[in-house]
Amino acid sequence: MSQYHALSEQEAVEYARNIPNFFPEGAEFVSREIGDGNLNLVFHISDKVSGKSLILKQALPYAKVVGESWPLTLDRARIESEVLLLEASLCPELVPHVYTYDPALALTVMEDLSDHTIMRRGLIEGNRYPLFAAHISHFLAKTLFYTSDLGLNQQEKKLKVQQFINPELCKITEDLIFDHPYWNAETNNYNPLIRKEVEQIWQNDKLQFEVAVLREKFLTHAQALLHGDLHTGSVFITARSTKVIDPEFGFYGPMGFDIGAVIANLLLNYAGQEAWIADEKARHDFREYLLETIRDIWTLFAEQFQAHWTQDGVDRLSKVAGYREDYMLRLLQDSIGFAGSKMIRRIIGLAHVADIQSILDLEARARSERIALSIGESLILLNRHAHSIEEVIDIAKGALTE
Amino acid sequence: MSQYHALSEQEAVEYARNIPNFFPEGAEFVSREIGDGNLNLVFHISDKVSGKSLILKQALPYAKVVGESWPLTLDRARIESEVLLLEASLCPELVPHVYTYDPALALTVMEDLSDHTIMRRGLIEGNRYPLFAAHISHFLAKTLFYTSDLGLNQQEKKLKVQQFINPELCKITEDLIFDHPYWNAETNNYNPLIRKEVEQIWQNDKLQFEVAVLREKFLTHAQALLHGDLHTGSVFITARSTKVIDPEFGFYGPMGFDIGAVIANLLLNYAGQEAWIADEKARHDFREYLLETIRDIWTLFAEQFQAHWTQDGVDRLSKVAGYREDYMLRLLQDSIGFAGSKMIRRIIGLAHVADIQSILDLEARARSERIALSIGESLILLNRHAHSIEEVIDIAKGALTE
Repeated sequence: MSQYHALSEQEAVEYARNIPNFFPEGAEFVSREIGDGNLNLVFHISDKVSGKSLILKQALPYAKVVGESWPLTLDRARIESEVLLLEASLCPELVPHVYTYDPALALTVMEDLSDHTIMRRGLIEGNRYPLFAAHISHFLAKTLFYTSDLGLNQQEKKLKVQQFINPELCKITEDLIFDHPYWNAETNNYNPLIRKEVEQIWQNDKLQFEVAVLREKFLTHAQALLHGDLHTGSVFITARSTKVIDPEFGFYGPMGFDIGAVIANLLLNYAGQEAWIADEKARHDFREYLLETIRDIWTLFAEQFQAHWTQDGVDRLSKVAGYREDYMLRLLQDSIGFAGSKMIRRIIGLAHVADIQSILDLEARARSERIALSIGESLILLNRHAHSIEEVIDIAKGALTE
Repeated sequence: MSQYHALSEQEAVEYARNIPNFFPEGAEFVSREIGDGNLNLVFHISDKVSGKSLILKQALPYAKVVGESWPLTLDRARIESEVLLLEASLCPELVPHVYTYDPALALTVMEDLSDHTIMRRGLIEGNRYPLFAAHISHFLAKTLFYTSDLGLNQQEKKLKVQQFINPELCKITEDLIFDHPYWNAETNNYNPLIRKEVEQIWQNDKLQFEVAVLREKFLTHAQALLHGDLHTGSVFITARSTKVIDPEFGFYGPMGFDIGAVIANLLLNYAGQEAWIADEKARHDFREYLLETIRDIWTLFAEQFQAHWTQDGVDRLSKVAGYREDYMLRLLQDSIGFAGSKMIRRIIGLAHVADIQSILDLEARARSERIALSIGESLILLNRHAHSIEEVIDIAKGALTE
């Protein structure tokens, strides 16, 4: 089994059986392939006798999106597994446990989280996760601080930059987030009812300028090891537990990109609620909950990040008067800019989010899309001038009354 | 000869003899070891019969500075030779030709440039190099543009970032340029007569803040493949020819660091001329020549860099209105900040420059050092607010009248 080939279900079960010290003798295996088949095979393998289970995730050598297929490096399985291990060393309770990684098969064997829900699904259904802000801010503060030059020996950090060079998956982001949505690219995919708003974005020079600067940061600012794709579809959640999954886009980039991804996806749900909650009061309340979550995420993140800074800062110059405050402000500004760009791509670009895309009535969907575009645009135009997370909340509220 | 060991002179000659198609049959070899013995062995090997010659440069596994010795990676020989080859692909006339590189021996065989002078020496002697500004601006524009995301496919660029990760040599810069000069570090080495000025720098919070931000850029902004140590001691020169040597500090960093290094070293010579040219009019004229060279370097660099941008920009977003102008302004600002930090380290830090250090009279030297510190400090405080290279020239002129 050492040469790469896509596993059959039977081979997956055999692989699982041979993992040392996991399944007991006499296990009776049940296997289901639960991946979406676009990028990876995902086998859920359980033993009816002991009740134990695990996940085998195998990268496929191509990506399938809207029917098209292009080759995609298997190295992303290595990156995913190595990022997970690194994250586990910092906040083990917030990522799935990795049992083993098999480079030849591009295969990661990891903890089964079937008792969790994909957070995006949960939010669409109107569920609240009161611990999410605390959990994700903890994840962000730990992973971003301790992989950066602030919290990690600067020579070790350079070796990690080298370890996590990820050209192919970064290219997906560079094209689909920072380029195609801003002109009439073939990959774009948007509701014809918002054509006017889309064209306005294509003609907005000031917006395009800010996106160019954000893109430059994504291309050049190797601040910390990012998850790289931290939307609510990459979060498994219950009332008590949060698990961040799928870091195959991991690389050294600007911290604000991860923080902004979380904010953007909460705001996309905020926009989508136009259609999901009919009762006006209930909708308003849920949106208030989402905005409060955003406020809490930034506030708790900033608190913890700065606590790490004070306690574990490895850099003499990080103690210089005014530097930390300036750094945090730039971090907030980046987060806001990246949040905006992550919203716009989900409305105009190739890949959409179920919070909005699964609104079947096109008129209703267009209302949510206009809210999302308006927030995204305002955040991008604000970014380098922002001073407080409250400005994000004001923008989100204002977008409902336009 | 495949295992690493420091070559004897006899072994160096044998090595040279065996290089294919270089020296003719019956060559009569003369060899001189011309390195300073601190970091590298440098053998100059020539054939008395044909007159042909070449340089064997071998990295030593340690560095010796002011009597101390610490281990230093041999990988720097690979980096030096690979940077030279990459630079040669962009501007072959401005770097020594590499005949071969032997990784096992950390040995580069390259063109003999003995007919050139080290530029620092030439400037101390009061020589002018009217073609230098054109040559070095060409070098900077080519190497910085075509290794950046602006001029190179962004996925290839990431692989080059990986290829040129250079932790050990970057650490020397991080410590000796961006850290130690700003507090009472043991490695510092300064003229006791300027103790007051040095202590003022240690107490200047605003300056320390700017240095922290510059250091952060050095640590995180992977803009382009830098030479990394582009002072006038890394330039071999004649009236007609300029050759940039010794890129062992090469890595992906902020472009302004290379541009700033050139500016800083011209200004250090400017400060040192206090002692070298006795005649006031002649001194004034030489200094005007140095300032004009700085103006020309920036102006010609900016012209050529933008010409490459227009002609060979690979990035759609680089055409966005206002982006190029903004980029060039930030590049100027970075260059000014890094120039200032490279001046201060040469006065307070471990490694000094002959332009000033070889002034034997301590009082006279202190006068030059005060000029250099004053310019360096002003450039650092100016950096993020600068709008024109003329501000650099005004600062340099102003420092003479303080």
